Amino acid sequence: MERDYVDWLRRTLPASPAAPLGIGDDAALISPNDDAAIVVTTDLLADGTHFLAAETDPRLVGRKCLAANLSDLAAMAAEPLAAFVSLLLPRDGAGGLDTATLAQRLTEGMTPLAEEFGVAIAGGDTNVWHSKLAVSVTALGGVTPRGALRRSGAQVGDRLLVTGDLGGSIEGHHLTFTPRIREALLLHERYTLHAGMDITDGLAIDLHRLAEASGVGAVVRAGDVPTSAAAERLAAASGGNPIDHALGDGEDFELLLAIPPADATALVRDQPLECGVTEIGEIVAEGMWLESTTGERQSLAAFGYLHGQ
Amino acid sequence: MERDYVDWLRRTLPASPAAPLGIGDDAALISPNDDAAIVVTTDLLADGTHFLAAETDPRLVGRKCLAANLSDLAAMAAEPLAAFVSLLLPRDGAGGLDTATLAQRLTEGMTPLAEEFGVAIAGGDTNVWHSKLAVSVTALGGVTPRGALRRSGAQVGDRLLVTGDLGGSIEGHHLTFTPRIREALLLHERYTLHAGMDITDGLAIDLHRLAEASGVGAVVRAGDVPTSAAAERLAAASGGNPIDHALGDGEDFELLLAIPPADATALVRDQPLECGVTEIGEIVAEGMWLESTTGERQSLAAFGYLHGQ
Repeated sequence: MERDYVDWLRRTLPASPAAPLGIGDDAALISPNDDAAIVVTTDLLADGTHFLAAETDPRLVGRKCLAANLSDLAAMAAEPLAAFVSLLLPRDGAGGLDTATLAQRLTEGMTPLAEEFGVAIAGGDTNVWHSKLAVSVTALGGVTPRGALRRSGAQVGDRLLVTGDLGGSIEGHHLTFTPRIREALLLHERYTLHAGMDITDGLAIDLHRLAEASGVGAVVRAGDVPTSAAAERLAAASGGNPIDHALGDGEDFELLLAIPPADATALVRDQPLECGVTEIGEIVAEGMWLESTTGERQSLAAFGYLHGQ
Repeated sequence: MERDYVDWLRRTLPASPAAPLGIGDDAALISPNDDAAIVVTTDLLADGTHFLAAETDPRLVGRKCLAANLSDLAAMAAEPLAAFVSLLLPRDGAGGLDTATLAQRLTEGMTPLAEEFGVAIAGGDTNVWHSKLAVSVTALGGVTPRGALRRSGAQVGDRLLVTGDLGGSIEGHHLTFTPRIREALLLHERYTLHAGMDITDGLAIDLHRLAEASGVGAVVRAGDVPTSAAAERLAAASGGNPIDHALGDGEDFELLLAIPPADATALVRDQPLECGVTEIGEIVAEGMWLESTTGERQSLAAFGYLHGQ
């Protein structure tokens, strides 16, 4: 549904010089004047889809809502400026907390993260209603002199890299992850990045999106994808394969990058990030492929966790 | 609840040089660099509180959500740049429409208004959930060379003026109003405006807010408040007084302005706005007063329509 609607929006909405990037990237680029460009990203997170209000500490819910938004700024290598937080609060509260306490806890979960990344929580809108909890976060970021990182710049021959490791986010990472703001800014400053995004719905589907935006194909080498300990545990428990969790679980909030070969080699050698950065494949002219450790290629489907589909 | 929470937020959230205005005005002022200032406003509108999805054409709902946000830009005399629209859509649709049709109709209601005011709908987030319809709109505006209009600049002796006429919005105006963007920009350019805001919850409570932000009091002359035809009709039907509707109904989305005497006189004489502009009282040192046609003053309570309280 969302995809159809976004496609329809793209056809319907008029283009605008103030918003040159349009709909489709992790965030939009707004140019108030010739000298400034602002990245804007917005998420509307809902009880039952993005979090479970009855089961989860609202501080973690609040933190996640802001962190997911900041991850979209990281995806475009923008410096956080401000965030706007709106709440729709259930009149009867949630998880045993009354409405006012729920609102405070949600905010308490956001403020340490906001301080860590220098984000002003500069406004919002709060209402009480006879329905479930929803949290809207809009974040604004400033574009660095290197410009905004986009999904659309990948070129044939680029190496594919990811930060951190992937899969099994449901075991806790999806609530406690640190958005890769610092990592994105550092990499964007020191290396040539042709394209990038954050992995929200899963490596497989998000790579499809990056490839589609760039008009290219991609190969992922299964043996090189860094799988998380949680992915290993889930696979061991189910008799499955950790790589399937890494490809499809989603909510990793790691960076997926397409980098020209020389810079990719330097980056993998330098290892400037605490979370690590791994080469997992490369950009090809067409097709989406998963390559086994023995070199056989099979088609890589666009699977993943589709929020609210 | 909302007021307590906003007060708590003000105490809790760290101040930030990137967001000099902070929480409290109709919108926040964000400065990405020394040469640019952006006004940001966000609303999260909910079925049952701001609109009735089962009874109202979703095109009107969509239009209202965007128009209310643009009215906040008008309140600060900012030029619209872009809007971000997020939807939480009921899985079973609403008002007899399925989810996809509901989403399209909501957007169809926004696009003519967006085009009229040169607003790019530049992004958003769409999810389906097992609950009611909610619409989040965030709008960005550029500040003109005269700076942003604020609530806090009213001075003793300023005249109070309103655009259009007030009251009875529930009869239809709340769905069909035109945000006073053009009017705000024209007045801000040609006259000295000390303070301003848009009337969303009702003249009485919104004037309290403007006076509080400015550290002053105010007198409203009951006989001078322009009452709408709808307010007259409602009063006639109920045996009430149109002025009570004008003071308390809310959702007028007209401008309330504090203007120094000479400029106020010139403005009332010039009448440069199609919707009209009327002097209704003045700023005093302290107290909030309603003055009858015979000159008696009574205390003006902060009543109005409090969304979602």
